[in-house]
Amino acid sequence: MEFGLQSSQKIGFSPWWSNAISLVDSLSTRVVEFFRKVKKTGEDDPRRIGHSFKVGLALTMVSVFYYVTPLFDGFGVSTMWAVLTVVVVMEYTVGGTLSKGLNRAFATLLAGALGVAAHQIAIHCGEKGEPILLGLFVFALAAAATFSRFIPEIKARYDYGVTIFILTFSLVAVSSYRVDELVQLAHQRLSTIAIGVATCLCTSTFVFPIWAGEDLHKLVAGNLEKLASFLEGLSAECFAEKGGIENLEGKTFLQAYKSVLNSKPTEDSLANFARWEPCHGRFWFRHPWKQYLKIGALSRQCASSMDALAAYIITTSTKSKTNTDPDLQLRIRAACKEMAAESANTLKELSTAIRTITVPSAAGRHASAAVAAIGKWRDSLSDDIALPEVLHVATTASLLADLVLRVQKIAGSVEELARLAHFKRPEPPVHDAKIKPIADEDSQSHLSITLEK
Amino acid sequence: MEFGLQSSQKIGFSPWWSNAISLVDSLSTRVVEFFRKVKKTGEDDPRRIGHSFKVGLALTMVSVFYYVTPLFDGFGVSTMWAVLTVVVVMEYTVGGTLSKGLNRAFATLLAGALGVAAHQIAIHCGEKGEPILLGLFVFALAAAATFSRFIPEIKARYDYGVTIFILTFSLVAVSSYRVDELVQLAHQRLSTIAIGVATCLCTSTFVFPIWAGEDLHKLVAGNLEKLASFLEGLSAECFAEKGGIENLEGKTFLQAYKSVLNSKPTEDSLANFARWEPCHGRFWFRHPWKQYLKIGALSRQCASSMDALAAYIITTSTKSKTNTDPDLQLRIRAACKEMAAESANTLKELSTAIRTITVPSAAGRHASAAVAAIGKWRDSLSDDIALPEVLHVATTASLLADLVLRVQKIAGSVEELARLAHFKRPEPPVHDAKIKPIADEDSQSHLSITLEK
Repeated sequence: MEFGLQSSQKIGFSPWWSNAISLVDSLSTRVVEFFRKVKKTGEDDPRRIGHSFKVGLALTMVSVFYYVTPLFDGFGVSTMWAVLTVVVVMEYTVGGTLSKGLNRAFATLLAGALGVAAHQIAIHCGEKGEPILLGLFVFALAAAATFSRFIPEIKARYDYGVTIFILTFSLVAVSSYRVDELVQLAHQRLSTIAIGVATCLCTSTFVFPIWAGEDLHKLVAGNLEKLASFLEGLSAECFAEKGGIENLEGKTFLQAYKSVLNSKPTEDSLANFARWEPCHGRFWFRHPWKQYLKIGALSRQCASSMDALAAYIITTSTKSKTNTDPDLQLRIRAACKEMAAESANTLKELSTAIRTITVPSAAGRHASAAVAAIGKWRDSLSDDIALPEVLHVATTASLLADLVLRVQKIAGSVEELARLAHFKRPEPPVHDAKIKPIADEDSQSHLSITLEK
Repeated sequence: MEFGLQSSQKIGFSPWWSNAISLVDSLSTRVVEFFRKVKKTGEDDPRRIGHSFKVGLALTMVSVFYYVTPLFDGFGVSTMWAVLTVVVVMEYTVGGTLSKGLNRAFATLLAGALGVAAHQIAIHCGEKGEPILLGLFVFALAAAATFSRFIPEIKARYDYGVTIFILTFSLVAVSSYRVDELVQLAHQRLSTIAIGVATCLCTSTFVFPIWAGEDLHKLVAGNLEKLASFLEGLSAECFAEKGGIENLEGKTFLQAYKSVLNSKPTEDSLANFARWEPCHGRFWFRHPWKQYLKIGALSRQCASSMDALAAYIITTSTKSKTNTDPDLQLRIRAACKEMAAESANTLKELSTAIRTITVPSAAGRHASAAVAAIGKWRDSLSDDIALPEVLHVATTASLLADLVLRVQKIAGSVEELARLAHFKRPEPPVHDAKIKPIADEDSQSHLSITLEK
């Protein structure tokens, strides 16, 4: 093939088979590339394969209504709506499916009832007036409902429900002009939609369920770990006694926090779905999901600080070569190392605490150690020092000190979560502590918080 | 009413009408609150009201097919699909509607053809084999298509198309078991869906069109302005010769950059829709929308730096009271003021350049002035200075210097956009410059970039 291509190029024309070969070549490269992507998508999260099979299963189950004659005779062509419902309602997480399913069911019910009412009003207006009145109804309700989708609260929770409301109302109101047995039709549709929703819910809850709440829980804990690994890398690579802030480009820890910066949409949608989920595993209904969003927001602030710090370190790493006061530099660097390492420990403790649903007991100690390191650093500045010599390391330390405070805020927020969600206390190492009064106090403080809201 | 409530509380029971009154009270508060939100939603962007009316209009137009008997006789119950299509395809922007409409049309066509093919294969397997084979087909295709939705490239562009593909294939394949005139049914559905898509496209393109591309263009320019207003506030409030970094809590300019931090999802979806839009106003098809995403990413980096800087200034504003070297402090502050002010000017110039689609000519001058201010600041440090005295203002200056570099990156990115999108040159103030050679050069550099890709 190689030879054929070259010779055809030499004599200055390209025969059809040479074009065809290069086409096949580029096509096969694309196909290989595509399958590589498919493989990676599956490997990134194997639950995706399970979900795909679940959708196939739910569709096959619901299509049985077509194949079995007695069932089909009961619902007729409306069986279609069961298939349609399964395709659009089936979501990746249980909460997503529940949210869409309930939205669809209630919106259909409400819109169906209103549609029948609109029909009852319209038939009193004569043959010419009926379509005009129906058209007006559809126009007014569709416009109002569409506008309501721009209101953030409705957009966040009921966007799908409003779409289905417009859809069902229009279909019922408009087709009422042509269909005689409207109530029977509405009844058939509603039952098939209910069948579709039930099929989705059963498949998604009982066959390898994927819980949005659990995913959110893990995502928040994982993000704290990412932040920790940045600080860990910093303390190991930048503030080591020997070596220093050089050749940092390409280090992986400098990328660790980046995905945290853009985590807001995922967290928001998971929290939105988690609110619909029933009690599962270690989470009950009304678990304080909002607190996860607060921790997420603080994590992003922390990641912002890390971004600024990383940018500062990278842009200045090549310029800071002044070493006239090595002793002071060493002292500041030691304080920086401690700040970074202790903050990393705090974050790791918090992440483990969330993962294991345990009250973060050791995090406070690490956080205080980090704050103490800020003090050490400030103390080291009390001598008379020439500024330009240590400005770089001092600025880094200032930024780190700021980061320590942001980590402290995260710690406070995770402790709040531990209280709201009744995290279990870590087992006391020596003898049993009095658990009862603590638990009482806990539930009281929870109560007072609930009342304040 | 007040009296009635109090007396009932005194005698220790609450009659039904007192409960009813408080219920009505809380209900009316909620209703008022709701209407306040509705009003705000409309005022925030009056085009939303227009969009709502457009949806109502499109639905009313398409429902004419039900009311006019000759039209209804042509399509029968399939007219329903036109209504259904309008409800789900009609999006806020022209690009969104186009993307969904084309996705729907092509997915229906492909899935319909495959469904008919599946039916032709299945009928050869006898009465018992047919439903089993159909079920297998549906299971396999639904699972494969669902899995493909996890691939990021497909998710971003064809998510809706894949849903419709699953939907149509399942409906056609499954109902083929019950329907005799399958091809006629498929034909009716396809034409009604085409009618629905056409109605949506006409309404959304010709009645007060809202272009995703234009929105993206304005969003990116607006974000640069927000960043500029933060820096402007900083230079006016923090580095004024008198006064200083005190009482900053609650200043509005400290919040200016915050919305930029979370702009990624909006920008991504607008850019995704903009790619589908035909030539409109000052944008042609294949406008370099990707470059806007690059500018957006750099803006977010800049906002990250601002977040760190703002946090540093706020947490330390109350502590820095050392004023032993007022002269040096003044010099550093003047340099800071210049850095902030010139960077703000750069960003404002860039924003105006994008808004007016003009090559940013003055931005480079401001950017160089900002970089020169960094030099001034570094020079002011050449004396022997006691560190603790000026550490705060020096750290602030370091952070600002970093910010200046990030603003420069934005400037480079906007200049790239100006080249790619052939922004017009600003009119020369004195006499006409030779325009032709510049334009030639411009198109050549554009060509070389296109080829490099």
